[in-house]
Amino acid sequence: MKIMASISLKFPDGNVKEFAAGTTPEDVAKSISISLGKKAVAAKLDGELIDNLTPIAHDGSIEIVTKSDEDGLTVLRNTTAALVRIALKKEFPAIRLGEVSADEDGFYVDTDKDDQQVSVDELDAIAVIVEKLIADKAAIERVAISKDDALAKAKDDPYTTDLIKAVAGDQVNFLKIGDHEILSDGAQLANTGDVKKFKLLSVAGAYWQGKSSNPMLQRIYGTAFYKQADLDADLAKRQEARERDHRVIGNQLDLFFVDPKVGAGLPYWMPNGATIRRTIERYIIDKEVANGYQHVYTPVLANLDLYKQSGHWAHYREDMFPPMDMGDGEQLELRPMNCPSHIQIYNHHIRSYRELPLRIAELGMMHRYEKSGALSGLQRVREMTLNDGHTFVAPEQIQDEFKSILDLMVKVYKDFDIKDYTFRLSYRDPKNTEKYFDDDEMWNNAQKMLKGAMDDLGLPYVEAEGEAAFYGPKLDVQTKTALGNEETLSTIQLDFMLPERFDLHYVGADGEEHRPVMIHRGLVSTMERFTAYLTEIYKGAFPTWLAPKQVTIIPVSEEKHGAYADKLAAELKAADVRVNVDKRGEKMGYLIRDAQTHKIPYTLVVGEDEMANGTVSVRKYGEEDSNSMSSDAFVKEILGDIASYSREDK
Amino acid sequence: MKIMASISLKFPDGNVKEFAAGTTPEDVAKSISISLGKKAVAAKLDGELIDNLTPIAHDGSIEIVTKSDEDGLTVLRNTTAALVRIALKKEFPAIRLGEVSADEDGFYVDTDKDDQQVSVDELDAIAVIVEKLIADKAAIERVAISKDDALAKAKDDPYTTDLIKAVAGDQVNFLKIGDHEILSDGAQLANTGDVKKFKLLSVAGAYWQGKSSNPMLQRIYGTAFYKQADLDADLAKRQEARERDHRVIGNQLDLFFVDPKVGAGLPYWMPNGATIRRTIERYIIDKEVANGYQHVYTPVLANLDLYKQSGHWAHYREDMFPPMDMGDGEQLELRPMNCPSHIQIYNHHIRSYRELPLRIAELGMMHRYEKSGALSGLQRVREMTLNDGHTFVAPEQIQDEFKSILDLMVKVYKDFDIKDYTFRLSYRDPKNTEKYFDDDEMWNNAQKMLKGAMDDLGLPYVEAEGEAAFYGPKLDVQTKTALGNEETLSTIQLDFMLPERFDLHYVGADGEEHRPVMIHRGLVSTMERFTAYLTEIYKGAFPTWLAPKQVTIIPVSEEKHGAYADKLAAELKAADVRVNVDKRGEKMGYLIRDAQTHKIPYTLVVGEDEMANGTVSVRKYGEEDSNSMSSDAFVKEILGDIASYSREDK
Repeated sequence: MKIMASISLKFPDGNVKEFAAGTTPEDVAKSISISLGKKAVAAKLDGELIDNLTPIAHDGSIEIVTKSDEDGLTVLRNTTAALVRIALKKEFPAIRLGEVSADEDGFYVDTDKDDQQVSVDELDAIAVIVEKLIADKAAIERVAISKDDALAKAKDDPYTTDLIKAVAGDQVNFLKIGDHEILSDGAQLANTGDVKKFKLLSVAGAYWQGKSSNPMLQRIYGTAFYKQADLDADLAKRQEARERDHRVIGNQLDLFFVDPKVGAGLPYWMPNGATIRRTIERYIIDKEVANGYQHVYTPVLANLDLYKQSGHWAHYREDMFPPMDMGDGEQLELRPMNCPSHIQIYNHHIRSYRELPLRIAELGMMHRYEKSGALSGLQRVREMTLNDGHTFVAPEQIQDEFKSILDLMVKVYKDFDIKDYTFRLSYRDPKNTEKYFDDDEMWNNAQKMLKGAMDDLGLPYVEAEGEAAFYGPKLDVQTKTALGNEETLSTIQLDFMLPERFDLHYVGADGEEHRPVMIHRGLVSTMERFTAYLTEIYKGAFPTWLAPKQVTIIPVSEEKHGAYADKLAAELKAADVRVNVDKRGEKMGYLIRDAQTHKIPYTLVVGEDEMANGTVSVRKYGEEDSNSMSSDAFVKEILGDIASYSREDK
Repeated sequence: MKIMASISLKFPDGNVKEFAAGTTPEDVAKSISISLGKKAVAAKLDGELIDNLTPIAHDGSIEIVTKSDEDGLTVLRNTTAALVRIALKKEFPAIRLGEVSADEDGFYVDTDKDDQQVSVDELDAIAVIVEKLIADKAAIERVAISKDDALAKAKDDPYTTDLIKAVAGDQVNFLKIGDHEILSDGAQLANTGDVKKFKLLSVAGAYWQGKSSNPMLQRIYGTAFYKQADLDADLAKRQEARERDHRVIGNQLDLFFVDPKVGAGLPYWMPNGATIRRTIERYIIDKEVANGYQHVYTPVLANLDLYKQSGHWAHYREDMFPPMDMGDGEQLELRPMNCPSHIQIYNHHIRSYRELPLRIAELGMMHRYEKSGALSGLQRVREMTLNDGHTFVAPEQIQDEFKSILDLMVKVYKDFDIKDYTFRLSYRDPKNTEKYFDDDEMWNNAQKMLKGAMDDLGLPYVEAEGEAAFYGPKLDVQTKTALGNEETLSTIQLDFMLPERFDLHYVGADGEEHRPVMIHRGLVSTMERFTAYLTEIYKGAFPTWLAPKQVTIIPVSEEKHGAYADKLAAELKAADVRVNVDKRGEKMGYLIRDAQTHKIPYTLVVGEDEMANGTVSVRKYGEEDSNSMSSDAFVKEILGDIASYSREDK
């Protein structure tokens, strides 16, 4: 090994400086400015995060990491996680420690406490010990020990043993903090006193190494910040996300559940969720039929040959379910997409130019083989029903049809009160002639038509070169989930390839055969994802037309006012209002709170006065006060409310 | 071999008589009476059909077969089929002959004419030759020849070669008729002149030995009777069945298609068929919701373990699709039934007696692995959506719930104008203690409750002992298809087993856990089978509320009256009427006929007078005359017609 007297480090601005070998990131930061020296907590050397006190032994590109960088938070959380692990060992000497991870979202520590759950009280006790370690302001030293010694230390902990075995080389890094030694993971702060504000958030089960055949460990989640204000803001954001999370609301409102034992990614829609879904389905079908779409039903199974012809089997196989061998050489496949099915419908007749644009639509069930780790509630599932549609157009009709779809899409968004979305046009990368099929004129024309349509309609959009599928440009409508993940809500995708592959034709006005263009479009994505999305944007308070229960009637005394409540309920039911009478006989305050918790749009209380006057006492969801009105007036009000979703003529 | 001087024959009435050995069925018949001797065409000896002139060599039970017996028709058709095969050999000397079959429905002869279709003209030519053979009044002799000689005769015909090889023993029976020799099959008449009236009906493709990997042969269908009147009646019945056949109507009205290349038994619903199905689906869901059912959506896939627990995998496996291996030991299965899914819904919460009867319903898609030969249009499919429901009741609620389901069922039948059905109660066989699980009290109570409910409601029924499933008694509602096959339209099935297998509970009024009883019920069977059934009973003339197109408007001149037609159409569309304006510009007579062919309930013609007076000229489907009325009156009429299906309050 060459011993270097000096090293040269290159900075992000391009400057190169010479330093004595063995200089630390802290030294480098201080050499630039005193204030940077104070803020620096680590550095990135050739892209790799290193401790602030690690001597730098070779030339490289350097980037100082400060407290205000995301990487600076990662370093803080690495150290917080290490302190949590020390605290766990102190509190439960026999505990075994699994994986640990920290990033810009927080940190977690996996533990095995003899199959016992870590309780909330125990979390508090751990937090007290961590506070104490911070108050100690102990130096955090890094000590390298031999693998054999490390394995001997960890002999009672099979997980740590596995983690040590997985380290490359003969030496393993441990942290020494006061009397404590703990396996090191990632770049660390120099002193426990640098850990300022932290919070242990929750505990959940997690399989060792993510495999369901391994033991289930307890994963302790936490986060840490340098400032209280940042921690407070983060906790508020987490609370907000939790309140919006469709899985949480789905459970509170009894909308759906998933049982991984029976099938990961295969949701069961409970009656409440099913009512919402059915309302959405009827709405979207009626809307599409009124706009010239012909709805069909096509099978979820087809001969695998169909997906070989379409190209899905070649290009999309890893997302598809395994084929089923039916004997006689027949292989049936659960469809990953509905397009080949709608091509079957198109091809069942000879088509004339007079029929174009021919709009085929379906609530099409399809199956995608997602990894079980990627599955989440209704948002990421393996079985889904897509609001799918395929329009077959003559090439010169592309722009008009694109506008007509966009127009319908925006109307639908208004009806659901969807406002927070962005448009993205995806084009080919003209230099990537391998990926994109080679027809400059087609691409230029098609992209110009989409862009022109957006401009004509005055809609804002971003353009993304190189993000188109290889068979045509597209428009995506992007939204965000409560947890901050970007999702595609709608898409309009031109396709010049499938009409070739399936040799589609129409007879033109000239009597000759022509090739149509196919437009794939989904207005509201899958029923699963759309319901999840709506649950989050409404925070579970569905507008009356979608609410699973629209009215609950509470008689002050069932004996005295139950019959009046039943009569009102029958009237509302006859008008297709979803109503129930709450006869549980609990205290009035409890029943009203319960109706609010279940976010039922209207709660009616009926007692002596109401019965005598033919009135109802109406409390709307989210309001503090009740209004008294005649029962007829209420029927009129709620029917008006239910009908008000439609902005068709506004 | 013992040579017997006399044999003793036992008659159906129990009498036993002695005859000389070698006596024939004809002799036996004549010995009873002269008239029976004249009518006899064969006999059944120990259950096996034998020729009238076959010497009887041993004792046995005998039954004389006459012209008026079904077996007498089979003998006639065996001989007719033999004459058809001789005629084919005469007309096309190189033809190869496959299977032949005759029964109470007719006969068929499979042929291979070098992959060429047998044309209608050729059928006529064959019939002329058969007529000639009949006119010859030739004796039909049976000759036994050695298998080697038989194979030599058939050396150019691979199918006949296979048929000869399949004959047991060294000798093969041939028929000798004049100069012609033909492989014999089944009991035969004694003289070609005994074949009276026959008809060659049609030709269709059929795979050799029913295997799709074998060559496709031409199957010639025919029938034969002893009397012209019987033939005429049969042809009229066949014509009627053809006119009702949902596959024929489905094609004429563009309701659906099946493409065996893409998937046998996997129908594609075209827009017209899909409209009918959607209307049925919405109707039945609304009806069920109004009657206290909670509709859900559950996944078509589940872990195979679910069907192991339910017992389907053990008892029903051959009807199930092959499981899909998802890696990690997970096997997913397409569900064969929806019951386990609804049990998941039940078991998702702790249930109280206050919730019972708990009625879970779904339009549940399921998959059955039917043999491809058994598949037919929408009637027998591999993927189907069942109007399924499961009610969970306390044991003492069985009878009331059974009545409530029956009541709903009969209401639904009325709305669809279904009248031709019978009720069948299926009980256990009390002696078969192996099949039926052993709980006398349960069986007796349950059967008594079902019978009592039928009696209370005054509904007629038949009782079938030993036809219950092993887990409980049931009621089936039986109907017939156009082709005469019996189908189950609805079913109510008690189940005491699944609640045990899934350990279902509810908390009773006593605070203790109790076991509910499950009632499986389907009101209108699958969407596929019900649509097929309705198509047949309506002969494609769907009532207005179900018709895919309800009104067609024909302008006398598009130029002059097209705008008026469009305005009317817009008014009707706004009232949710399915209407189109026929602007093809063909001759008026053609367009009106075309609307009648497509069985559109209302055809409106609008011209000069109508435009001037704000009227329409209305022709209802199936009527010869048109009525003039104001367009407002028409809107009122058709809306009344659409609403009239509901007999709820009648």
